[in-house]
Amino acid sequence: MIFACGRLSGWDTSGVTDHGLRYFEDYVPGTIHDCGSVSLSQAEIISFASQYDPQPFHVDPVAAAAGPFGGLVASGWHTTAVVMRQLVDHYLPVEASLGSPGVDELRWPAPVRPGDTLRVRATVVEARRSASKPDRGITKTMFEAVNQVGRTVLQGTATNFLLVRPDA
Amino acid sequence: MIFACGRLSGWDTSGVTDHGLRYFEDYVPGTIHDCGSVSLSQAEIISFASQYDPQPFHVDPVAAAAGPFGGLVASGWHTTAVVMRQLVDHYLPVEASLGSPGVDELRWPAPVRPGDTLRVRATVVEARRSASKPDRGITKTMFEAVNQVGRTVLQGTATNFLLVRPDA
Repeated sequence: MIFACGRLSGWDTSGVTDHGLRYFEDYVPGTIHDCGSVSLSQAEIISFASQYDPQPFHVDPVAAAAGPFGGLVASGWHTTAVVMRQLVDHYLPVEASLGSPGVDELRWPAPVRPGDTLRVRATVVEARRSASKPDRGITKTMFEAVNQVGRTVLQGTATNFLLVRPDA
Repeated sequence: MIFACGRLSGWDTSGVTDHGLRYFEDYVPGTIHDCGSVSLSQAEIISFASQYDPQPFHVDPVAAAAGPFGGLVASGWHTTAVVMRQLVDHYLPVEASLGSPGVDELRWPAPVRPGDTLRVRATVVEARRSASKPDRGITKTMFEAVNQVGRTVLQGTATNFLLVRPDA
């Protein structure tokens, strides 16, 4: 379902799915949100890493075959970036998001190889109103990506600032 | 100076600078390494965010002007990615790097706006030999990016696995 709220007319919402999470109050600790799945091709892995992380095991299939992972693997930052896209499309509130001050315990426990399918999910671990700014709340979200054989390839805990519902 | 070590013939080293850090032993706790500077244009900010983090304050200058940052700002993941490139070029050991299991306390304390110049530096905070694998060591590095007015815009602590010197 495509998000078609009139209040979003200020920017291009094509492709933004209506996940139903709009304001701080919608993020309930303990709830788990499916954020879809994503896959990286070898060409995408090499393209991203050539620009941002050109270590041999990310950009050169021949060198990578003899390297620590026995083959080409995605930059952890590439995996993180595509998981972020899933979170934007399936989890973060399109209007109420005020950004993030940071992420804790970001982990890449297993390599991501070309063609792997990563399922992404987000768990609300904490939600509290701001003590100093009454218009917002602070959430902590554990996000994770699991590959097609059930291995976790990415995990982390993000802090986010979100507007409270206008009539709250 | 261009890295021209014969042992690197297996992959393209064009553009890789010789920062003199080659193996685990070269990472001495307490030392600070200048990793150069980097800048993001508005077009680059929008291009990265359109693919990976299409929140209005990263992709739409008009919406961003009325948003929480009062203007367009880079995705924190974009800042992290370009800082990673500086670390690859100026700090990580091109042959001895065995990848990273993760990053702790990743922070974006201030926004990055188009045209900001970010200076990147890396501080070795810990270096120890692996107890289980004698061919490698484990380093912890605090990396940070500071803008042209002295504000820290990115900070984090990375763990890395590195080969020890072959004759060590």
